[in-house]
Amino acid sequence: MYERFWQQAGDKSTIVIPGWQSMSYFSDAGSLCWFLEPDFAQEIIRLHKIVGNAVTEDRHIVVGTGSTQLYQAVLYALSPQDAVEPLSVVSAAPYYSSYPLITDCLKSGLYKWAGDARSFNKEGPFIELVTSPNNPDGYARQSVVNKSGGILVHDLAYYWPQYTPIISAANHDIMLFTVSKSTGHAGMRIGWALVKDEEVAKKMVKFVELNTIGVSKDSQLRAAKVLQVVISSCQYPTSLGSLFDFSAHLMEERWSLLRAAVRQSGLFTLPEFSPGSCSFLNRSFAPQPAFAWLKCQLMEDCEGFLRSNNILTRSGKHFGVSPQYVRISMLDRDENFYLFVERLSTIHLRHSIQVDERGE
Amino acid sequence: MYERFWQQAGDKSTIVIPGWQSMSYFSDAGSLCWFLEPDFAQEIIRLHKIVGNAVTEDRHIVVGTGSTQLYQAVLYALSPQDAVEPLSVVSAAPYYSSYPLITDCLKSGLYKWAGDARSFNKEGPFIELVTSPNNPDGYARQSVVNKSGGILVHDLAYYWPQYTPIISAANHDIMLFTVSKSTGHAGMRIGWALVKDEEVAKKMVKFVELNTIGVSKDSQLRAAKVLQVVISSCQYPTSLGSLFDFSAHLMEERWSLLRAAVRQSGLFTLPEFSPGSCSFLNRSFAPQPAFAWLKCQLMEDCEGFLRSNNILTRSGKHFGVSPQYVRISMLDRDENFYLFVERLSTIHLRHSIQVDERGE
Repeated sequence: MYERFWQQAGDKSTIVIPGWQSMSYFSDAGSLCWFLEPDFAQEIIRLHKIVGNAVTEDRHIVVGTGSTQLYQAVLYALSPQDAVEPLSVVSAAPYYSSYPLITDCLKSGLYKWAGDARSFNKEGPFIELVTSPNNPDGYARQSVVNKSGGILVHDLAYYWPQYTPIISAANHDIMLFTVSKSTGHAGMRIGWALVKDEEVAKKMVKFVELNTIGVSKDSQLRAAKVLQVVISSCQYPTSLGSLFDFSAHLMEERWSLLRAAVRQSGLFTLPEFSPGSCSFLNRSFAPQPAFAWLKCQLMEDCEGFLRSNNILTRSGKHFGVSPQYVRISMLDRDENFYLFVERLSTIHLRHSIQVDERGE
Repeated sequence: MYERFWQQAGDKSTIVIPGWQSMSYFSDAGSLCWFLEPDFAQEIIRLHKIVGNAVTEDRHIVVGTGSTQLYQAVLYALSPQDAVEPLSVVSAAPYYSSYPLITDCLKSGLYKWAGDARSFNKEGPFIELVTSPNNPDGYARQSVVNKSGGILVHDLAYYWPQYTPIISAANHDIMLFTVSKSTGHAGMRIGWALVKDEEVAKKMVKFVELNTIGVSKDSQLRAAKVLQVVISSCQYPTSLGSLFDFSAHLMEERWSLLRAAVRQSGLFTLPEFSPGSCSFLNRSFAPQPAFAWLKCQLMEDCEGFLRSNNILTRSGKHFGVSPQYVRISMLDRDENFYLFVERLSTIHLRHSIQVDERGE
């Protein structure tokens, strides 16, 4: 979806790295995050300042191989090494389907997935993941566990103006971001964390050191260049507007096509959002999330039903809820997205025929 | 140490990536390792063929964020998910100091560090890491556990002609390599595994997917370019010779300086190696490892003793042996290396004075 913007941005976003550059493990040997490229750190701060979506003052920046690695770094950093039992990790359902898989894949003695935050009632300390806007359903979120002893981790991968109005600068203790959802460069595998507590930041750095001995310098240098172009597109917008104008416009268009298709089909529902005033885009609009969270009104197995209609989705059961729901990406290439909404809009006809046939 | 070669290689090794390229998570969606750049895979095969250090036929290539990530991917792939107790992981001491730290950092229920392979006598299945040439001591190695039920993992990061004669093409089930030790590009964080068994390769891919959703495309593209230049330097050597001629020559020079300094000081010993005939360089030479594994003859705490002489090293205790040993990198920049050997060579004088003063 973002490709066209970057094609039109042209050579400004091209990175050139000679063979003799960036050979060492170290980016900034003396700093807390010794593998963080200083240029990339600087562009992160500038970007948050211009977009107004997160406070960077009094924060340590930790770079990761995508925010996925940073999520694990946070778990490592927050779990006491000498605890009798693993720390519980919870998130309100529907939650990002990778959280439980990543948390439990090594059967760690440090932490353990404990499911839906809404039904969590175990005594003792815990980690609550707050994904806002939420993956998969797009709603803005706050902590839901009504208990002390919890440490909050805010996954803000989608808190950018193309997906949701920027209401205020997020000001939490641990905030995760990623280039894949902000600029579209998923293949870079670059994420960053803004971390208030120095000890937590140090332990996160330790994890990335143990896990991958730092983070690709090449991708950090490229990410710095790309963020620089994004910032400059905000300061001096061309005919396309800023990256956020461009992509917010596309998302608006796509959501309107999707809602039309859903109306035409009559078999599904989508989340409804209230508009909010975006301080960055200077207008009011309703969230237009990176995923469609679709509910089948009649079918129990929405994923299977859509698969039989040549639409590949991810079942709600992976997100801790009913298989009546599915998640569908709204960020695919144009041709795939148009094919998807076209197929979706025509389902009711064929479905009605099936129902009629069964009725006979 | 490698910088000069790459400077003289010039623009041929420069990578240029426009902003709209390599945006997707996927490199080759249909292949077993869906995040492996096909160009990089091709250069890996060509490089092993020309150097003759590893068999690539009937092997799956899995790319990782450095061989460190691949080490964890191997542990994950080889550990049964439903085992009653964690799989033991062993390696003959002195072993790479990061192995126990990485293995145990998350207190995994799947696998557990079980120390020196030579004293391992637990019943049941286990993983034996065979690092050859060995980090830290540089010796060529084979499996030492004399028991069935073991799965061997060969870490061949240093099996390149600048460090050791290439005697034959390694032909093991699981072999790990990394660009940081072959071309010097540690900052790329790129390693690769050659894996015989398809199921093991698939599980390794699954781990990298869970851990970091793939591997930086930018660094893979750069690694492909760099390997291409290495291969071409072997086929059409310039005045510097191939990368391996250049770096083998440097290593020889450095080892001869180091041995002279050790002789002059009289307080230390180094491993002694027998020469072997290298099929790639077409000559016989003794190993000239990436690390000096130094033993203090008089001091119990060699690391502390050298620190007091302004030489920073890593104590043998991290490698599972006595603190009489230390590991020192032989790959540092020229100025640091010369300073190190100079300081080492003069230690015996100052030390003798200290001994004399105490004796009075």
